[in-house]
Amino acid sequence: MPEIKISKAIIRRLPRDYRYLEELKNNHVERISSQELADMMHVTASQIRQDLNHFGGFGQQGYGYKVNYLYEEIGKILGMDRVTTIILIGAGNLGQALANYTNYRKRGFCIDAIFDIDPEKIGKTVQGITVRPLDELESYIGTHKVDIATITIPKEQAVKVAERLVKAGIKAIWNFAHTDLSVPNDVAVENVHLSESLMNLSYKIKERDTEH
Amino acid sequence: MPEIKISKAIIRRLPRDYRYLEELKNNHVERISSQELADMMHVTASQIRQDLNHFGGFGQQGYGYKVNYLYEEIGKILGMDRVTTIILIGAGNLGQALANYTNYRKRGFCIDAIFDIDPEKIGKTVQGITVRPLDELESYIGTHKVDIATITIPKEQAVKVAERLVKAGIKAIWNFAHTDLSVPNDVAVENVHLSESLMNLSYKIKERDTEH
Repeated sequence: MPEIKISKAIIRRLPRDYRYLEELKNNHVERISSQELADMMHVTASQIRQDLNHFGGFGQQGYGYKVNYLYEEIGKILGMDRVTTIILIGAGNLGQALANYTNYRKRGFCIDAIFDIDPEKIGKTVQGITVRPLDELESYIGTHKVDIATITIPKEQAVKVAERLVKAGIKAIWNFAHTDLSVPNDVAVENVHLSESLMNLSYKIKERDTEH
Repeated sequence: MPEIKISKAIIRRLPRDYRYLEELKNNHVERISSQELADMMHVTASQIRQDLNHFGGFGQQGYGYKVNYLYEEIGKILGMDRVTTIILIGAGNLGQALANYTNYRKRGFCIDAIFDIDPEKIGKTVQGITVRPLDELESYIGTHKVDIATITIPKEQAVKVAERLVKAGIKAIWNFAHTDLSVPNDVAVENVHLSESLMNLSYKIKERDTEH
């Protein structure tokens, strides 16, 4: 496919489009119209067309999108067609939850190593991966391909660990610590701030109660 | 405070503003200018003013915002000034991670009950809370105040459980299952789709590699 420039708003929506296309594919649906897909996803058909028409004229009138083709093409845009190696910093419940989620593997995400500072956890295995001492972080990164470092430790330690990761050459961080990390511009960060998500929900409840 | 109408975009940003104000408060900072806060948060001073000026003229020129006052007022908007009761469906690693995060409690979130279908988990305690059989879901909701139900079970079971929750009268769902839930309009849902977040990061890596 030729190089295409897609807006940030559309890019943010592609993973959700991808998830729905995956479900259709798993249900052996071969074609779908923008209206059907829109109804499924609770968005407008025009948004669907806006998202998907970047991938060529696959949505011809009366014909619909080819599910598998679109799934593959969006997958390529999102990097699902290659192996992405991940290390986890933090073997607590959240780290273990991430390690146990096998669906990542289908999408080419490979958790290769887990680190922790807790002597109780070091040496134990999670999903067949032995938990290493955090001291080995730099030597590991120096000798292995690591695409993403995932941080699932308390914020007090997360800032320091992020600095070490950047210094060791890591270029992408998936951050679950309840803080924003200060990293150079060439390091990609994706934050999952659970407490903010919960506050958003709390706001919705409060707003509804106020209306009644 | 009189009733005020705030745009959705600002509401989405308030939890992050709140988090920074909390940190300032914990560090005993009493006042801060919009420019200082903007620098900390890596946004523009004009965005800060846009977000915070809804709360009255607390950002006078040369004086700055009163941290504690602003923290309290935003907290009220977000419903942090009252107790919000939560139940967890799913006592796996993710459910346990959420139960263990004590900071929620400071903000008035109280996890009161945990449910699971796994006989190995039922009867065990997580953070002092005994895991109940999922069969008791409806009878529990019928006899307790539950503001939020959190779903941390696989998507195959999540859809059915969401239906049961809605039928039992639940009006807010914090959803971690890798699926979108179909609920009536008066039920608030906040989704945390971890796989989409990871795909967004994967895209950023791929885009950077393509540029070089």
